[in-house]
Amino acid sequence: MLYGDNAYFAIGQQSVLVPVPVFVRGSASIVGSKEGKGPMGELFDVVSEDDYIGCDSWEAAESCLQRQAVSMTLEKTSMTPKEIRYLFAGDLLSQSMASSFGLQDFNIPLFGVYGACSTCGESLTLGTMAVCGGFAGNVMCVISSHFASAEKEFRYPLSYGNQRPLSAAWTVTGSAAFILSSEKTDNDLALVTSFTTGKIVDYGLKDSFNMGCCMAPAAADTIFRNLKDFQRHPCDYDKIITGDLGKVGKTVLLDLLNEKGLDITEQYMDCGMEIYDPNTQDCHAGGSGCGCAAVVLSAYVLKQLASGNWHRVLFVPTGALLSKTSYNEGNTVPGIAHAIVLERINR
Amino acid sequence: MLYGDNAYFAIGQQSVLVPVPVFVRGSASIVGSKEGKGPMGELFDVVSEDDYIGCDSWEAAESCLQRQAVSMTLEKTSMTPKEIRYLFAGDLLSQSMASSFGLQDFNIPLFGVYGACSTCGESLTLGTMAVCGGFAGNVMCVISSHFASAEKEFRYPLSYGNQRPLSAAWTVTGSAAFILSSEKTDNDLALVTSFTTGKIVDYGLKDSFNMGCCMAPAAADTIFRNLKDFQRHPCDYDKIITGDLGKVGKTVLLDLLNEKGLDITEQYMDCGMEIYDPNTQDCHAGGSGCGCAAVVLSAYVLKQLASGNWHRVLFVPTGALLSKTSYNEGNTVPGIAHAIVLERINR
Repeated sequence: MLYGDNAYFAIGQQSVLVPVPVFVRGSASIVGSKEGKGPMGELFDVVSEDDYIGCDSWEAAESCLQRQAVSMTLEKTSMTPKEIRYLFAGDLLSQSMASSFGLQDFNIPLFGVYGACSTCGESLTLGTMAVCGGFAGNVMCVISSHFASAEKEFRYPLSYGNQRPLSAAWTVTGSAAFILSSEKTDNDLALVTSFTTGKIVDYGLKDSFNMGCCMAPAAADTIFRNLKDFQRHPCDYDKIITGDLGKVGKTVLLDLLNEKGLDITEQYMDCGMEIYDPNTQDCHAGGSGCGCAAVVLSAYVLKQLASGNWHRVLFVPTGALLSKTSYNEGNTVPGIAHAIVLERINR
Repeated sequence: MLYGDNAYFAIGQQSVLVPVPVFVRGSASIVGSKEGKGPMGELFDVVSEDDYIGCDSWEAAESCLQRQAVSMTLEKTSMTPKEIRYLFAGDLLSQSMASSFGLQDFNIPLFGVYGACSTCGESLTLGTMAVCGGFAGNVMCVISSHFASAEKEFRYPLSYGNQRPLSAAWTVTGSAAFILSSEKTDNDLALVTSFTTGKIVDYGLKDSFNMGCCMAPAAADTIFRNLKDFQRHPCDYDKIITGDLGKVGKTVLLDLLNEKGLDITEQYMDCGMEIYDPNTQDCHAGGSGCGCAAVVLSAYVLKQLASGNWHRVLFVPTGALLSKTSYNEGNTVPGIAHAIVLERINR
């Protein structure tokens, strides 16, 4: 059995060991009002009190979030759009419209990516390949989601006032951008050292209001694969961080890994469970959306690595592959999860 | 001004010279009944007389097209799914549903990409980076579109029987898959030698029934950039091939390049203008959809390179970045075009 073993940097079945350091040079995050009131509120670069971000549609607001995340990241790193060779961008809207209308002014060659809420992991993986392979000096990854545009896209427009079951998650309004670079500077936040790319995993679940359960098998698969491919134990990571499984998905994930003889309870963290206060913010299962993992990575995880509190984390954004049409046609909700390993820079 | 110039293989503003050969090891195409009756009908691997491909929805039919394209490509190259390190897949449906439900059985790590009808160029570019960078031995790119699922997604369900203006294009029902490999074999079809990644270009046009016009400025931009970055002339290519500009977009493209002092009339070919017979097939401006460029590349262009008829081509799939929502909200239709250079293998 071959697993692409003629590739220099391929490890095991699904992983890659990054041979040349790729630096996370900088990042910025912007979130909506609800996220600003959550436990991480003070960590985000900007909290917008107006969830329309000054625009006249939810879609335009989401585009504006992406634009501001990119601009702030350039500003924080004192870089110009001309220094960014490629953008890797994605969101949850049909035909990735938040990216298409958010990023054109920067005039940077664009790769549109789609991995549902795993998009942050996918874009950082592809960006790492571009930099590490010598095809780009600097690239930027940008990801967004918006509660109101997502409700309209996947469920009911807000004005319908529909009820949501307790297993439902709350789509995060927010965007984060990240610059990956081949060049070391004094202010780099972390290193990307390896990645494990996920497969579609479908356990046949059909409840689009319980996406945590639908995505948990994919997260389990990717985490298991990462540990096997690198012959690591959970304790080799300070944290194993999923994107937005929420409290229902978390239980399923821990159970599935237990069945494989892995206990990650001690290292486990889920961005969706950290971003809102479950006691005061009525967010049901937790936060979700591809912006969820992205803004928590930007505002919290990278800072823990940059300050040296954490040494190495496995960051695993998780996506539920569904659309309004697939749901209405009675299809299942397959999941996918893309993992990247981020490490502290030794100074 | 820096243009990512610390990247080893970056050329000029937007291009990359592939430093290690990437071989197109094999490819297969499947199309619907209308495409089978067109001028290229005999070149496709499979023509399905049933546009539902035996399924009970248009979306499931499109997923089935992708599945068959992948299976046939594996069969033609005597490869197994385990030998393919990554899939790069995309389509036109909301949240890329054709890929999500078409590819899970292969159990291959997946990168979902979205570039509207430029997706074929985008996936081949990212696949080339993965192989050339040493992250994968073999990858597969797969792209699809379906006339009926696209009409439902972007315009009106077929049963409405709406009329279409003469500037409208006909979305190609079809899928093609391509294996890119670092390893040379006796039956490789062509080499990927460089690429030029496009930016979003928006001339402010809003007519979603005239996508050729909306995409032409992006095609002009990418073709111009490719020629400048490599200091080439149009005659350095046997063909300069756009995806689906159609006859209206063609005129705009040639005019725009003429304004920049470039005449590509002699080399120019558009996949959308070749796939149907304009006299007998009532296709208006021509074929479109991300399947259009993909199946013409698979069935025609690669064969011309493999047989030695052509030496070097610039393949430029073109995408119109719109959604039903962006259209209904009165937005423009920005374009994007991703070019790859394919060359004959000297034996």
